[in-house]
Formats: sequence, structure tokens, C-alpha cells
Amino acid sequence: MEQQIIFSNDIPQSLNTALGGLDYNKTVIITDVNTRQFVFPKIADVPVVKESPCIVINSGDINKTVETAATVWKQLETAAATRRTVVINIGGGVVTDLGGFAASVFKRGLRFINMPTTLLGAVDAAIGGKTGVNFGGLKNEIGVFNEACAVVVSTLFFDTLPPTELKSGYAEMLKHGLLSDRKYFADLLGYDITSGDRDTLLGLLKRSVTIKRDIVAADPHEHGLRRVLNLGHTAGHAFESLAMKRMKPVPHGYAVAWGLVVELILSHLIYKFPSDILYTVAHYVGDNYGTFTITCDDYDTLIALMRHDKKSRGGEINCSLLADVGEMRLGTDVSTDDAKAALDIYRDLLQ
Amino acid sequence: MEQQIIFSNDIPQSLNTALGGLDYNKTVIITDVNTRQFVFPKIADVPVVKESPCIVINSGDINKTVETAATVWKQLETAAATRRTVVINIGGGVVTDLGGFAASVFKRGLRFINMPTTLLGAVDAAIGGKTGVNFGGLKNEIGVFNEACAVVVSTLFFDTLPPTELKSGYAEMLKHGLLSDRKYFADLLGYDITSGDRDTLLGLLKRSVTIKRDIVAADPHEHGLRRVLNLGHTAGHAFESLAMKRMKPVPHGYAVAWGLVVELILSHLIYKFPSDILYTVAHYVGDNYGTFTITCDDYDTLIALMRHDKKSRGGEINCSLLADVGEMRLGTDVSTDDAKAALDIYRDLLQ
Repeated sequence: MEQQIIFSNDIPQSLNTALGGLDYNKTVIITDVNTRQFVFPKIADVPVVKESPCIVINSGDINKTVETAATVWKQLETAAATRRTVVINIGGGVVTDLGGFAASVFKRGLRFINMPTTLLGAVDAAIGGKTGVNFGGLKNEIGVFNEACAVVVSTLFFDTLPPTELKSGYAEMLKHGLLSDRKYFADLLGYDITSGDRDTLLGLLKRSVTIKRDIVAADPHEHGLRRVLNLGHTAGHAFESLAMKRMKPVPHGYAVAWGLVVELILSHLIYKFPSDILYTVAHYVGDNYGTFTITCDDYDTLIALMRHDKKSRGGEINCSLLADVGEMRLGTDVSTDDAKAALDIYRDLLQ
Repeated sequence: MEQQIIFSNDIPQSLNTALGGLDYNKTVIITDVNTRQFVFPKIADVPVVKESPCIVINSGDINKTVETAATVWKQLETAAATRRTVVINIGGGVVTDLGGFAASVFKRGLRFINMPTTLLGAVDAAIGGKTGVNFGGLKNEIGVFNEACAVVVSTLFFDTLPPTELKSGYAEMLKHGLLSDRKYFADLLGYDITSGDRDTLLGLLKRSVTIKRDIVAADPHEHGLRRVLNLGHTAGHAFESLAMKRMKPVPHGYAVAWGLVVELILSHLIYKFPSDILYTVAHYVGDNYGTFTITCDDYDTLIALMRHDKKSRGGEINCSLLADVGEMRLGTDVSTDDAKAALDIYRDLLQ
């Protein structure tokens, strides 16, 4: 079944549309403590929200576990959910990842609707069918590929988010811009994320989500093309892990922004990605995300982390790079020398 | 990808064929304590078996849990399994159900091969893509629909099984016979399961597995046609649950055999299923499976259990019945009066 993506700030109408085509006996909501506190006051009068039993999990990635999924399953049983029940996940990436997984394996699969309440959730987690929980210290180690039957995208809840959260999501949109065309990329750089102009943002968001959806549709199980979505993430995950080792975690999207700079440098070194765009991006990232400070003493650690990225096939650093905006170069093996050179240039540009 | 089903008693050759078309980096075996003890001596020299790390779970349905799946995931991590790793499940239904589920959600999905070592596993659990574990006291409550990329079916290991196990599996084959045609059904009634003639059995097994595979292929997610496979199971599960309440559990296949008699009686009452075949089946079941003794004091309990069957859509008893051998009548609502009448006739025929 084709996945419905509904872009609207009219939540009652959106949920009706999302549920309209489905044959179901009841709805159950999955959300987390934070969303319940900050977002639910805005949707308390929505009929579907009022009428559905609500399963509330603890907030934060640390609670994205099999154990939390088990508490959801118990509550789905209490709510007498059957295979004809539809789950509605309302929250950020933790809720849509865990709720999507919990629904996908309950009685061998309930259908679910995602209603992301964060920008990162809207552009990343809620779309594309990746569900899962962390396990054994590894992120998203247990999960399935299974798409929400509908995703309700709005900008209505973003006022409840701190600016850091908004910027974190915007980094993924910049990535989508780099994967598509110069016009959209320029529109993204021209928008002021701190402006509070949510109508313009909804338009940009629509473009971003459509780019991601089209890539996912061409490769739902990440065998090939979908890896382009990894742009910025091989280096980004390495920054994120290094920050964890330093006991100073950084927001995912910030790590992706810095990772984008590193991987555009690699794109320039290997595929002659245009230097003017590289400089524009580096400048934008420096202004909006600051910098992640490294010294050459960190190089070996970072390179080891990049080698062990989940999507790596062997012991090599493997990146999705670009020859130009919209010109993807999948699965490039990167030499240690090139990686070190890129980190040198990253420090020149951002530090 | 089309699922390969390989019928052969040449295990090294079968495993090579099963793995032949796959691009993979390593294999990991999942089995249980009993299979390890009784079956592995027969396959110790098979190269794939010798070379693969082996994850051994505890035997028995009581260990088919999320917790056991978690121990499997930990060991898959220890074995450095990646998305390119193929899991080989060697064992009965507990191993193929749990191993299939554990593989299906590890890193969002490893491929797996099933090598059933019991007759019930070969005709039922290993084929059809139903994976899962028990949860919250409910059978197969957590799982996914995901087919093994190959199933290796042999009769080589059946000598290690007690006769009760063999008969239990044979009840599912009788069901397949009733779902297909009189010729195959007659062949099944003519075969002596205690004879040890494994070549004839392999031929019958092939027919049975093909019948199931064709039904599953037409309806992989159990939205419609596949429910015909439920023949005998609505009443069968009720007998099984009643036996549990009495603290005297019965083998699943025995409960199915008695359930078949009840549901053929219902088929006769509602759809005029031929009485001569009903009597033949009742006679065969009585001779080979004995009887499950009930009194009219048990009727209310049995009918309540039949109403709450997992596949029930509401509060009604809903059965897959037959108008004749091979003539399916899906999703028939059965009145309490008809159910009581059927239990009366069951007692007349079998007690």
C-alpha cells in the first residue's frame, strides 16, 4: 500500500484523512512523557486523541530499549489491541522508532501512523520505514523495515522545541538539499530557522520529506541507493561517538552538520565537488552549529570509528559522497590518507 | 525472492544448494539443547555445520520468549554477525519460530534458512514465514511474517523422535490432505506412520509442504485465504487450553486431530460435508490419537475458548470449514447451538 504523507497544520483533519482509508477496530496512541507534557495540551480536543487509550513511555534515547517495547506490548494487550488496531505514534524519533517497532511485531504486525512532533522526527525518523530499539550498546540494533501507513507532518509543535532541536533537524534538510538541486539548497540557506515563520518551513519540509521518500521508495531495504542518505553520517557518527567518549554528548544533527563538512571535503578531494559550495556550507555550519574541536591526536580514534560504522561492509571507511549537488557517488572507499587530509581541511575551515 | 524448498536426505548437498544463490559473509547456526544432543551427531561432518558458530537455546515452548531472543542477539553480536550473515535454524518449531524472529529483527533483518528436524516443524512451523515468540502468556504474540530464504526438508532426523511427536506432525498433514484432494488424503490414511518407511514419508511430506506453500503464497499475511490452514485449530486450541487448565497438557498435533473431528462435524452440520469422510476421519483419529475426554460441564469453557481464538474478529466463534475435501468455506460464524451439537456428536464418535 502506498504510504500517505499529509502536510498540514490542521491536525483533526489530517488524522481523519490518515485513518480514512483504513479498516480498523480501534486506535491506540504511543507517546513519551515530554510529548505528553508539552504537545498534548495543543491536541487535547482532537477527537481521535481524546478517544484513544494512550501508552506513555519514558523520554530519551536511553529508554529506546527492548524492555520499553515490552512495556508497550503489555499495554497493547491491556488495551485489547488486535491485528485490526491502528497505533498512532506521537512524538520525536524515539517514539516513532520504538512505537513503529513495537507495533510491527505485536501479533506479527499492527499498522501504525506517525505524527512526528520534532523537526528531526519529521525529516528523518518518521519517514522511511526504519523502526527499532537500541540493544547491547548499539543503536537501532533490533528492528524491522516497515513503513507507517501514514505520516502526518506539521510545524505546529515546533514552538515547543528548543532552538538546538530545530537546528538539529535542519541539518538533515541541508543534506536533502545537497542530494537534490541547487535551487532547493539555496532556499534552505536563505531561510532563518530562528524566525518562527512556520508556513515557509512547512513548504521546505514538504520538499525535504519528498526527496527522502523518493529515495526510500527506490530502495526500501537499504541495499543500494538509499545509502546516499548516509551523506554526512559516517563522519557525523564518528564525531557523535567521540563526543560520547569525552562525556560531552552533542546533538545528532550538529554532528551531522560537521560530518557534512568533512564529507563534502572528501567529495572535493575525490570527485572535485565544487569548492565554492563547500565553502558556503562550511561557513553556514560554522555560523549556525559552531564547531566540534579536534586535534591530530583525535585522528586515529575518528578514523577507527568511521571504519566501524554500521553500514560499513568490511574494515574500510565507506562513504556516500557527491560530485556536485544532486550528483551522488555511492559507496566510495576512502583511504586513511584522504580521511586525514579531510580532517586537516575541516580544522582549517571550522576552527 | 522466491523461497527455495529442498526435499532431500543429502544434507551437505541441500545446504550447499540453499546457500548457493546467496551473497553472504558467514553463517551462524541457531539450535536447541535437545537437537544439539540428538541430531547434531548425524550432521557433525557437514562442512557448513562444522564451520559455523552455534547458538544453543534451551528446549521447549516455555523458552520461546523475548528473553531467549535477547540471548540470541547477544551471541549474534559476539559472532560479529552483519546484515550479510545468514542464520541457519536447525531444530523443531521452537527453534525455527524463535530463530526466524531473532534473525528477522537483528540489524533490521538477517536472512535465514530453516532446517526442521521434526515432522511438525517440517509441515508447519518451518514453512510459511510465521516467526515469533510467546509473550504475556500468549502464544506467538510477538513476531513478524518473514519467510526463510530456503527450507531444507528431510526425514533423516525423524528416527530421533518419539512416536508421539511423529503423530503430532502427521495431524497437520491430514489437515493438508483435507484441504487438497481425496487421492492425497487416501494416500495419507494408507501410510503407516510407525513403519519407519522414510522414503514414502518424504514423498507425502513434499506434497503436504507444497499444499501449504501454495496457500501461503496466495496470502502471506493471513488476510484471507490463509485462514483455511486454521482448519481444526479453533477447536484444537480450545482442547489444548482446556488440557492446560486441567494441568494435563496434550501434544499440539493431537489437539489438532481432535479439533479436526469437531470442525468436520461443524462442516457437516453447516455445509453438508460428506458424512462417510467424517466417519473415516473420526475412526482414524480415535485409533491413532485416542480421545480427549469431555463432559457437557466442559462445553461452556470450550466455547468461551473458541470465541477468544487469536484469529477471531469479534466475540463470535469463527472457523474455517469445508463443504467437501478441497472445498473451503472461510470465516464461518458458528452459533453456540451448533458448537454444542458438534461437541455432542464428537463425544458420540470418539468417547
